[in-house]
Amino acid sequence: MSLAPRNTLVHQVRRPNGRPTPQDFAFVTEAVPTPGPGTALVENLLLSVDPYMRECMDGDWELGVPLEGRSIGRVTASATPEYREGDLVLHRHGWRTHALIAPGEARVLPQVDGVDLSAFLGILGGTGLSAYVALTRVARLRAGESVFVSAAAGGVGSATGQIARLLGAARVVGSAGSAAKVAYLTEELGFDAAFDYHDGPLAESLARAAPDGFDVYVDNVGGDHLEAAIGGLREYGRIAWCGAISQYNATEPPAAPRNLFDLVEKSIRLEGFLVRNHRAVQGELEEFLIPHLINGTVVDPQTVTDGFDGIVDAFLGMLDGRNLGKATVRLGLA
Amino acid sequence: MSLAPRNTLVHQVRRPNGRPTPQDFAFVTEAVPTPGPGTALVENLLLSVDPYMRECMDGDWELGVPLEGRSIGRVTASATPEYREGDLVLHRHGWRTHALIAPGEARVLPQVDGVDLSAFLGILGGTGLSAYVALTRVARLRAGESVFVSAAAGGVGSATGQIARLLGAARVVGSAGSAAKVAYLTEELGFDAAFDYHDGPLAESLARAAPDGFDVYVDNVGGDHLEAAIGGLREYGRIAWCGAISQYNATEPPAAPRNLFDLVEKSIRLEGFLVRNHRAVQGELEEFLIPHLINGTVVDPQTVTDGFDGIVDAFLGMLDGRNLGKATVRLGLA
Repeated sequence: MSLAPRNTLVHQVRRPNGRPTPQDFAFVTEAVPTPGPGTALVENLLLSVDPYMRECMDGDWELGVPLEGRSIGRVTASATPEYREGDLVLHRHGWRTHALIAPGEARVLPQVDGVDLSAFLGILGGTGLSAYVALTRVARLRAGESVFVSAAAGGVGSATGQIARLLGAARVVGSAGSAAKVAYLTEELGFDAAFDYHDGPLAESLARAAPDGFDVYVDNVGGDHLEAAIGGLREYGRIAWCGAISQYNATEPPAAPRNLFDLVEKSIRLEGFLVRNHRAVQGELEEFLIPHLINGTVVDPQTVTDGFDGIVDAFLGMLDGRNLGKATVRLGLA
Repeated sequence: MSLAPRNTLVHQVRRPNGRPTPQDFAFVTEAVPTPGPGTALVENLLLSVDPYMRECMDGDWELGVPLEGRSIGRVTASATPEYREGDLVLHRHGWRTHALIAPGEARVLPQVDGVDLSAFLGILGGTGLSAYVALTRVARLRAGESVFVSAAAGGVGSATGQIARLLGAARVVGSAGSAAKVAYLTEELGFDAAFDYHDGPLAESLARAAPDGFDVYVDNVGGDHLEAAIGGLREYGRIAWCGAISQYNATEPPAAPRNLFDLVEKSIRLEGFLVRNHRAVQGELEEFLIPHLINGTVVDPQTVTDGFDGIVDAFLGMLDGRNLGKATVRLGLA
């Protein structure tokens, strides 16, 4: 029997049919790897679970191999000059307690007074970058315009609403899945209006929240939300389409939106994007947001699950909308 | 009994339920109006019938009032210095044999050697402008990219294919509704490939015509064509959505493309537009196309119906796809 620490990893072991379940995953342990020449060993401190991973489950993730995802960890041993013991690094080998990283695979994170390390998985990570790119590169929001964002209490949504306000949006409106989230949006995050999408027909709730319409819609949901948003958009409106969390568990292609031809009638632009194609904007994002994080004009809400054992629950809970802000997992060592 | 000439006009007299019929229209005659101070009388020579008019029939056109549309006519009497007797003018009071025009309502057309007057209703008119705007302003085609256009043998489609080639498209592919149209596209208009959309599943026909995909889709059809095009577009593809002739007669909203989420996966932009918002591009269009019309590198196919009595048939035939190129009506005097 060895008392040496073990590395725990997660495999996907079967494809979900609709909503995933804990049985689609397996925890696996192995000896903590020893860094060979040119690599470093990282103890992961924070792990990210994200909506896009639901899509990976349908094919991109191979079964029976360690899952990947964004993570922040501390270098505990290094055989490469690129990483030093003690460095805090952002890398992609998440869903495990320990990871080997090679040069080029990780970024040594700056330590900024007043900015929590976890922000680099949240509003300073792919989540915030999605929101920033949606507004500045895809929808190209102009000061004085109005914005609607769906899944507004989630990671991308909460970042979108706050960034839109900083960019000079005249009005920021969001939809969310509970009364508590709605209250959080208007009372804590500065949204001008918000509604629970369970409360009656979506188009009516949206029209009440945005009676004069809006110019930009950042879509994290798809389906009925996209249809309602097309209805509420003004002429020359733009939709930045990030994701479709309402559809990831669907076993049939969705039917909505029936009003798609309104894109012609109102000269609307519907543009999809993948944040991975916009990594070059990362520096601009940090320059823009870090001062606001330090002075508190922007917050980075996260729902943190404690302990690696909880990662599957954290992921499934995020898909069910149980998170407020970005969903992350904090390991015992953090 | 008077032998004075009569003005004949067309009214819409009822709303169509699905496909319009001749009974939805009525021909009406009145005395030819006399131009009062500040107006001029025009004898119309050429009238345009366009897909967008099918949409007007559902609501924009009031019942029992003279229909409007683009027309070219000759000024026969004028009580305004803006128009002189004999001027050839482009104006919006079509669907009638005679029209009164006020200053600002008409454009005195240039007479250009080698350019048929009718081109100002076709490739130099709203039809050609739609194609040019779709490619240069909406999809922003770059030299070396490939293009697919639906309803390619129609007015906008035939202009799109030819203009795309002039803009340096690597490959131009079109769909049309008959073998004769397909032959016309490849043999006369320089399309690299074309197919009859009746010949088997659209996605398969399109994949055969464009095996390496395409970067730009100019959509005049909507529905199944839009879905097939989303499937064939490459990453960063753009769709310029002009119209949806497949849907205008539909009594139910069409099913949205079931693969709409591919817009996210492939970072595709779907943008609707109305040519009326791009009239400022008209001068650029003429500067670009007139040399090509003169030297024959661009043609302006038109299906001409002779006689004002035929205007309703010309319109309905265009909706049924019986036209090759732009559908126009030539009055006896032309």
